Amino acid sequence: MLSKNEIKYIQSLYHKKTRDAEGVFVVEGPKIAAELLGSGYRVRKIYATEKWAAPSDLDTEVVRVTGEELQRLSGLQVAHEVLVVAEQEEAVRLAFDNRFTLVLDGIQDPGNFGTIIRIADWFGIKQVIAGEHTVELYNPKAIQSTMGSFVRVNVYYGSLVDIISGAGVPVYGAVLNGKNVFEAGKIKEGILVIGNEGRGINDELRTLITEPLTIPRYGGAESLNAAVATGIILSHVVGH
Amino acid sequence: MLSKNEIKYIQSLYHKKTRDAEGVFVVEGPKIAAELLGSGYRVRKIYATEKWAAPSDLDTEVVRVTGEELQRLSGLQVAHEVLVVAEQEEAVRLAFDNRFTLVLDGIQDPGNFGTIIRIADWFGIKQVIAGEHTVELYNPKAIQSTMGSFVRVNVYYGSLVDIISGAGVPVYGAVLNGKNVFEAGKIKEGILVIGNEGRGINDELRTLITEPLTIPRYGGAESLNAAVATGIILSHVVGH
Repeated sequence: MLSKNEIKYIQSLYHKKTRDAEGVFVVEGPKIAAELLGSGYRVRKIYATEKWAAPSDLDTEVVRVTGEELQRLSGLQVAHEVLVVAEQEEAVRLAFDNRFTLVLDGIQDPGNFGTIIRIADWFGIKQVIAGEHTVELYNPKAIQSTMGSFVRVNVYYGSLVDIISGAGVPVYGAVLNGKNVFEAGKIKEGILVIGNEGRGINDELRTLITEPLTIPRYGGAESLNAAVATGIILSHVVGH
Repeated sequence: MLSKNEIKYIQSLYHKKTRDAEGVFVVEGPKIAAELLGSGYRVRKIYATEKWAAPSDLDTEVVRVTGEELQRLSGLQVAHEVLVVAEQEEAVRLAFDNRFTLVLDGIQDPGNFGTIIRIADWFGIKQVIAGEHTVELYNPKAIQSTMGSFVRVNVYYGSLVDIISGAGVPVYGAVLNGKNVFEAGKIKEGILVIGNEGRGINDELRTLITEPLTIPRYGGAESLNAAVATGIILSHVVGH
């Protein structure tokens, strides 16, 4: 049986303030848990129903709980077999040579943010830099939306203007009147800046863009979702 | 002042059963309302706060309400100036020659579904066919996620196997082991089938695919979100 205090503690981790103070975060469901447990993240605690099969090389004790107990701990509408508490990681040092870096400016929707991390992972991008007005990676909805890709993508938070100014590589940006991305060709080194869906890239950052890119429009929609736009651009400049 | 019955009636439209029985649907916010009012859809009722500026050629009476009243009618967390009740439309007859048709099999998340309609609109696709296990277009979350694109895209519901079998055009499908979509070239005529994110395209439909397509993967993510995959594929086969 879980103690009241233990339940309260896990529930408190759905608040950023407690998460940051404790330096931990929560991951749910067998798929993402497997990604997490197979990664370098340090695991503090695992709660699971009898249904969950622990990996054979697991060195963390599993607290077996009933489905009802798990639901009380869960941030999901329907809890799913396992909940893991792991330690937040500091992003490693940034490097820009010979690699492609994604920069997110003001992406506030956690689902969109997580989906973008998943897209970055699909295209083999290992470095994402998020500005101050971008949602926190360890937000439960963001983490769940990465579908586990957060273990392979290094997400760094900082001042975008300072970081981009000092990067020394071409700076691409998704804007309205740039070069046709379908004709941009493959890019091996550089930064791609994706802005807030409603407002686009902020004015100060925009002056740092050396290579503006645009997805041509053939119909009537006014805009594309930020995650969809990221996927399309990456498929043309990183893929191929 | 709104009557209790009027409030109850609007709230009842958030249930599919009532929506279908009444043949109407709800749209919220000035942006999507503008798209709707500028389209051929028939409008039944408009509720708006004083802040909302009605178009000059509007021939429907506007019921002015307070922000609090609008919130009571609203399906959004934060109501936004205007709520329109409009009549559902029957999709027009299908045609496949000289056009590109999108087919959705089992897309159940309303946000994903609406986002896909918006992507179709961006790429100038005017015909989308949804299978029985795909969410209803007039679901409020789906409609809102289209950002107004539903007025330009004809969404037809029916038996996918029957429709595709009789279409007489190439049938493309997003699958795991198909041809590299980056090398597929531009497609002027055909059907593209997008399946359910978890399960993919159902077995019966899969046998009808003549041109399997795959988005190459460069990193570790297991899959892409269905809307993101749709955007990437369309940008390679419709765009360019």
